[in-house]
Amino acid sequence: MQLTRYTDYSLRVLIYLALQEEGTRVTVSEISEHFDIPKNHLVKVVHHLGKLDYINTTRGKNGGICLAKKPEEMGVGDIIRKMEHNLKIVDCQSPSACPILPICLLPSILSRAGDAFLNVLDQYTIAGLLSQSGQLKSLLGTGEMSDKYQQIKTRSID
Amino acid sequence: MQLTRYTDYSLRVLIYLALQEEGTRVTVSEISEHFDIPKNHLVKVVHHLGKLDYINTTRGKNGGICLAKKPEEMGVGDIIRKMEHNLKIVDCQSPSACPILPICLLPSILSRAGDAFLNVLDQYTIAGLLSQSGQLKSLLGTGEMSDKYQQIKTRSID
Repeated sequence: MQLTRYTDYSLRVLIYLALQEEGTRVTVSEISEHFDIPKNHLVKVVHHLGKLDYINTTRGKNGGICLAKKPEEMGVGDIIRKMEHNLKIVDCQSPSACPILPICLLPSILSRAGDAFLNVLDQYTIAGLLSQSGQLKSLLGTGEMSDKYQQIKTRSID
Repeated sequence: MQLTRYTDYSLRVLIYLALQEEGTRVTVSEISEHFDIPKNHLVKVVHHLGKLDYINTTRGKNGGICLAKKPEEMGVGDIIRKMEHNLKIVDCQSPSACPILPICLLPSILSRAGDAFLNVLDQYTIAGLLSQSGQLKSLLGTGEMSDKYQQIKTRSID
């Protein structure tokens, strides 16, 4: 019973962006390095978050991404609903259509359970995840660059 | 946000067994044919359900499997808790340990949402899924053999 890695990464991207000073734009490479997530995975996530109007993208030399709205306006439940490609808890069509599907009670019960799951997450926004923003910034090495990020930057210049 | 196929199949096996007349034993091949699920997948599921005391297995010529307790005693939430190999909603250790894990609020919020999901399913048992048992039997072609199953049996004898 897991969310996809895709949704997980989208939450990490939004948390990272929400920790930036207003007006700051960051690159996908920076997020990739800070979370140690392959950049090609993040590019897809960021593109999708852009299409959903969670983030703004600016191209060019000083370009980058930033939040398109306030973290207070980003419900965790909504993000999950939009990023999960499939909210069906079981796939009754696999490996072929389940023969009892027309009258099986399980899909509706699982759907009700899925709603209960999302209803809990509807009580939280990205802003609500940042209560220890100072420590989060420190752990991510954002704002003041961490040793780790400094090393990566130095390596990439070399 | 899906349950594993493994858990899905375990629920199908228990529903199938719960629809049998008391004392009837069925084979894994029979369940595999009725649900059109590869037998090798079901063998693992059935073995696990046996270890968890959900089903009894009898070897030999007239052997087979049957429920080890009443369907009323089999909570859907419990089955899912036991069959899902991982109840963590996201894997904070993948692709490497998330740097903000020590203070991130997301795991505990997701865990609370997962509890809400399972709490809904705790309200149901396998027995509760069988309210239209006559129709379920008919769709599965159990009791009176369906044309489909009859054809499969004939083929397997050929």
